[in-house]
Amino acid sequence: MSPVTRVVALSGGVGGAKLALGLAQVLASEALLIVANTGDDFDHYGLRVCPDLDSVMYALAGLNDARRGWGRRDESWGFMAAFGELGGERWFNIGDGDLALHVLRSQRLRDGVTLSAITAELCARLGIAARLVPMSDDPVATVVETDAGPLAFQHYFVRERCAPPVSGFRFDGSAQARANPAFLAALAAEDLEAVVITPSNPFVSIDPIVSLPGVRAALTACAAPVLAVSPIVAGQAIKGPAAKMFAELGLPSSAPAVARHYGDLLDGFILDRADAAQEKEIAATGVATLVTDTVMRSLADRTRLADEALAFAARLRGSA
Amino acid sequence: MSPVTRVVALSGGVGGAKLALGLAQVLASEALLIVANTGDDFDHYGLRVCPDLDSVMYALAGLNDARRGWGRRDESWGFMAAFGELGGERWFNIGDGDLALHVLRSQRLRDGVTLSAITAELCARLGIAARLVPMSDDPVATVVETDAGPLAFQHYFVRERCAPPVSGFRFDGSAQARANPAFLAALAAEDLEAVVITPSNPFVSIDPIVSLPGVRAALTACAAPVLAVSPIVAGQAIKGPAAKMFAELGLPSSAPAVARHYGDLLDGFILDRADAAQEKEIAATGVATLVTDTVMRSLADRTRLADEALAFAARLRGSA
Repeated sequence: MSPVTRVVALSGGVGGAKLALGLAQVLASEALLIVANTGDDFDHYGLRVCPDLDSVMYALAGLNDARRGWGRRDESWGFMAAFGELGGERWFNIGDGDLALHVLRSQRLRDGVTLSAITAELCARLGIAARLVPMSDDPVATVVETDAGPLAFQHYFVRERCAPPVSGFRFDGSAQARANPAFLAALAAEDLEAVVITPSNPFVSIDPIVSLPGVRAALTACAAPVLAVSPIVAGQAIKGPAAKMFAELGLPSSAPAVARHYGDLLDGFILDRADAAQEKEIAATGVATLVTDTVMRSLADRTRLADEALAFAARLRGSA
Repeated sequence: MSPVTRVVALSGGVGGAKLALGLAQVLASEALLIVANTGDDFDHYGLRVCPDLDSVMYALAGLNDARRGWGRRDESWGFMAAFGELGGERWFNIGDGDLALHVLRSQRLRDGVTLSAITAELCARLGIAARLVPMSDDPVATVVETDAGPLAFQHYFVRERCAPPVSGFRFDGSAQARANPAFLAALAAEDLEAVVITPSNPFVSIDPIVSLPGVRAALTACAAPVLAVSPIVAGQAIKGPAAKMFAELGLPSSAPAVARHYGDLLDGFILDRADAAQEKEIAATGVATLVTDTVMRSLADRTRLADEALAFAARLRGSA
């Protein structure tokens, strides 16, 4: 028997991982499917690095470094020190413990194992009960179109520190990639209760997932309400370049702009109390709204927001 | 103008690296060519590991851990801890700093760069003036024939801790491999003054080098005396399984047994004072002998033994 997925969460890295952890806390392990963006994945010196997938995995395993915001806690940096000394590029930092994941995964990929299967193995090793899958087992590469030309995502994000103004995005390989079958199956199930778009970057964390063949149609057709949590609060992104990107694209960096970006994908939108004044602007587009505290500082914040999102979805199902 | 190599040193790992460092201290950088065994090299999770080459490189750079006997000093172990946690094999330890070398080199090899060129780059980065080359840019794999069947060298040496009794050795790929051109050119030069076989394991450190096409003939024909320093002192190896191997092959583990093993390759043999009583047994085979202190504890020991070996070679040239 395949598990009955009640909730699907779409996630990028840090912000998404926070709500994914909240959902994993409040739902039975078989009820939740977390789908992570892999458009950020890249090859660095023969190592396949999957930043969003790993951020979610480390968060679910309680291994994440909350202060730094990426990588493992209690990390050492002996590799990077020697790597730089020997002439290796220094712009992408990899901790010694984090490196173990990349070395193992890269070898398993070369052995012909799928990223989904490797992710399941690693999650089992780390004692993660929730199901976490990459959006696809096929490579998709997010490219950021900027004033400095097109940049591979990590070059834009890490090497260039998001400095070059953006003009657009493309997801190389997306049209040929197959969305994760477990993801598509969960969206097609009649007993699905909610799809939660976590507060990750709409352009570079969520859009790569939605761009996969069949995903937009499946999200639109699915039985469950699709909710998004705004990554923009009071005009700012909690973390990362989302607000800057909205502005550079000539859009307001605001919760309503996020809701408009997702457009007809959405049945519900969760915005922060700080943006309560903009609730009507969002509701006017025909999307149900929930105003609450969306900034997740503690584990209690994460589980409370997860509970509220699920209750919101239940109300939307009741009123459908 | 190509450099004038006056001395060629053949080296395995730790013992060889000690005398290689001594020679590098007493000779001008262009006068010495150190040829390292690469029969121990292997692929571990996609990383190309070259234990002997790296032991020599770290020793020449002053980065070696003298107490542990392998790897870098001031090393951290975050990678191994996480690697084991995630299900990676634990039998082969790689320090965090050491890993940088393997990641960089593996990527350069995938880029199509030769091991010789990569070694030169790394040596330059580490400020090593002496010339260090791998015995070949082609893969050669030492296989140890044991009572437990044939074992890849690192499986025998590290995983099985040299426990299975040995019955022989083979060097897979050797017949097809090309000896390093700089090595062959140095042996062919008329002004070569000495070939020094360092006190490394004859079976698994030196024989792989000698097994390469053309090397035995070049050593026999070369203008300079070929000297070996005994890795066996008072019946024991200073480090590693050499004495155990002699015994398991039904041979005495003694300095004369080492001299007989090298046979007509040798013009001179350097043995320890502890074995002075066996000098005549070696001399009877027609090989010139030098009895001295061969156990290298300090840098002063290394340079003194290097000086003595070079003076011994000069005497042999004078008497030829």
